Amino acid sequence: MNQRLEQQLSFILEIDQEKNIFRQTHLSGHGRNENDAEHAWHMAIMAYLLREYANEDVDILKVIMMCLIHDVVEIDAGDTYAYDPELKKTQKAREDAAKERIYALLPEDQRQMLCGLFDEFEENQTAEAKFAHAMDNLQPLLLNNSNDGGDWKAHQVSAAQVYGRHRMTREGSETLYQLTDRIIQENIRKGNLKG
Amino acid sequence: MNQRLEQQLSFILEIDQEKNIFRQTHLSGHGRNENDAEHAWHMAIMAYLLREYANEDVDILKVIMMCLIHDVVEIDAGDTYAYDPELKKTQKAREDAAKERIYALLPEDQRQMLCGLFDEFEENQTAEAKFAHAMDNLQPLLLNNSNDGGDWKAHQVSAAQVYGRHRMTREGSETLYQLTDRIIQENIRKGNLKG
Repeated sequence: MNQRLEQQLSFILEIDQEKNIFRQTHLSGHGRNENDAEHAWHMAIMAYLLREYANEDVDILKVIMMCLIHDVVEIDAGDTYAYDPELKKTQKAREDAAKERIYALLPEDQRQMLCGLFDEFEENQTAEAKFAHAMDNLQPLLLNNSNDGGDWKAHQVSAAQVYGRHRMTREGSETLYQLTDRIIQENIRKGNLKG
Repeated sequence: MNQRLEQQLSFILEIDQEKNIFRQTHLSGHGRNENDAEHAWHMAIMAYLLREYANEDVDILKVIMMCLIHDVVEIDAGDTYAYDPELKKTQKAREDAAKERIYALLPEDQRQMLCGLFDEFEENQTAEAKFAHAMDNLQPLLLNNSNDGGDWKAHQVSAAQVYGRHRMTREGSETLYQLTDRIIQENIRKGNLKG
């Protein structure tokens, strides 16, 4: 087998481990914790279906690929809960080290391509990165809302924290931010979120 | 909220259930059974990285979307193991009924778009459908190979059955069929597959 295909297969087998990285979010129907691969799959389909609400025109293939690969680094770095300030402090260093190791399994041109997509997502300056971030925020919000805000209750998250995180949603989609705002307000009324 | 967004959100929440549809394939490292959402995520990234081996040029966005949505019907129809002849007989009828129900949650234009992608995948006539099928076959083969053919051994699958299934891989990619052939031969030698 040629070396290029061997490197590609080595990366493909490596990322299988993303299915073992569990998040704080629970599946709908008060299900088990969700893992990163499932989250990424869900976000990618959402991006395809909801792209009409992006604030700016987006290259949808690029958005989908950002959605699919943005959590590969968590194979080494682990999941960092959005509302854990201690873990947040070390997140970038942990994820940068993971990026160096995991993407280096690929042939150099593909390493550069995927690292480029990941960096663009992280820097959050382009229309595609902003819309992918909106998906990254909206996907767990929808699941959590369907579960009566169980994840917020478990972690005693406040509405201010959720609004803080969803500033990024607004940069990607004003319409989906309005939806987010309505969901947050409903959850405050129901007592699922501290107002 | 407008009706269109409501329909889109209803579909998005519905497909969360695909994460509860478990397959016969096990994760690498002799892990648990894989579910359909994880399988689809993995296939989509594989398609992006391996497209240079497609027999014909492919519209990669279309291939990726086929990978991401092809198993949504299994929410109702359940997983049909590739080597179960009894279940195979009823597979099409079960999946067609599921297609009618689940995609109808979407706004009409998006229902048509996703049903079109699903039908094209199933009919397996276009370059995109053939390459997506190659991914659908190669993904579990790679996992199973990494686990010493454990799934084949558990179901007493023969090499002839595996070759039968992988005829489709060859239609999508001659190079990846050669890889498949080598993996099958190795597993025959190791006694993981009945020759």
